[in-house]
Amino acid sequence: MKRQNVSDAVIRRLPRYYRYLDDLHIRGTVRISSSTLGEKMGITASQIRQDLSCFGEFGQQGYGYNVEELRSEIGHILGVDNQHSIIIVGVGNLGRALMQNFHFHDTGFLLEAAFDVSPALVGSRVAGTPILDMTELDQFVRAHRPDVAVLTVPQAAAQATANRLIDLGVRGFWNFTNVELSSDDPGVRFEDVHFADSLLTLSYRITER
Amino acid sequence: MKRQNVSDAVIRRLPRYYRYLDDLHIRGTVRISSSTLGEKMGITASQIRQDLSCFGEFGQQGYGYNVEELRSEIGHILGVDNQHSIIIVGVGNLGRALMQNFHFHDTGFLLEAAFDVSPALVGSRVAGTPILDMTELDQFVRAHRPDVAVLTVPQAAAQATANRLIDLGVRGFWNFTNVELSSDDPGVRFEDVHFADSLLTLSYRITER
Repeated sequence: MKRQNVSDAVIRRLPRYYRYLDDLHIRGTVRISSSTLGEKMGITASQIRQDLSCFGEFGQQGYGYNVEELRSEIGHILGVDNQHSIIIVGVGNLGRALMQNFHFHDTGFLLEAAFDVSPALVGSRVAGTPILDMTELDQFVRAHRPDVAVLTVPQAAAQATANRLIDLGVRGFWNFTNVELSSDDPGVRFEDVHFADSLLTLSYRITER
Repeated sequence: MKRQNVSDAVIRRLPRYYRYLDDLHIRGTVRISSSTLGEKMGITASQIRQDLSCFGEFGQQGYGYNVEELRSEIGHILGVDNQHSIIIVGVGNLGRALMQNFHFHDTGFLLEAAFDVSPALVGSRVAGTPILDMTELDQFVRAHRPDVAVLTVPQAAAQATANRLIDLGVRGFWNFTNVELSSDDPGVRFEDVHFADSLLTLSYRITER
């Protein structure tokens, strides 16, 4: 399937489709029209049809989409059935919050271990996941080859930690450090979580009222 | 200034413009062309010109944008100079992480207080902000009329907590509970932070490699 021309905006909408379809599926909805789905999501039916056409043919004229099928197709496109492995680097409040509350499994990720420098944390477990010493990181990554590292280290350590992991072969970074990271390796992907962007969007919306 | 027709996609890009311009400003860049800015941000120059045209006239043919001016204009559009007040409801790991690490002030918000049910937390401070008892919430909100509440409560308490705050007059919610919240009041704004959407975007990108 040709995917080269999928725009960033479409890629960003895919997880939302998946989330809404997952919710509909859990509620027992069997099929849905593009207009009803669009209404729920606040986008147009034609936007949905256009987005999905990037990935193949879905739905049937006059029937709409089979919820379970489309959910599973989009899940497949997103790679949720790939069983990616993931590690957390930095077990401060945010790292710990993710370990305790985020359902890595539901997004197709297996959380293998977390790493920290604090002797008080090393050797303990949070929600079943072991916290290892940063000195064990290199050996662990070479042995387990995680697909993604969650970066929840302090800002000052962000780029150096990313560099170390890139050298070890990690190619995906879920970056919570608020530092713009870069790499010369074109195969490396950074996904930055910018809390401020989200709060500023809300600021705009309460300001325009 | 007419703003009715600003699309969600444009609104979502505004904080990114602000972030990039802020960074350029800090680095001492005085002016920038739409094409150079677009290159940095991974969007086209015409997209930038089109986005900004929703809010007025910026930049000059042949000169480009004055970085400090545009940064301050976009900041104004986003409401960063409005001094919104904000409270945090729920001081688990995530609430605490935001209190310790998130720069509310940089986004134009004044963090006034946090609330929790745990007797072990109530009465203490995190990064200078007092943690009050949930039983004090109603009185505090009536007296201080915060613009926004950060919801970092457990999922089961999410909608009830939102309802309580809406009844008290809060109109903006920064929602980390992963529960889709709703209100009959058309003036209420929810900004949901969905960590899973972000990780699934990364999953797609490491899968397509």
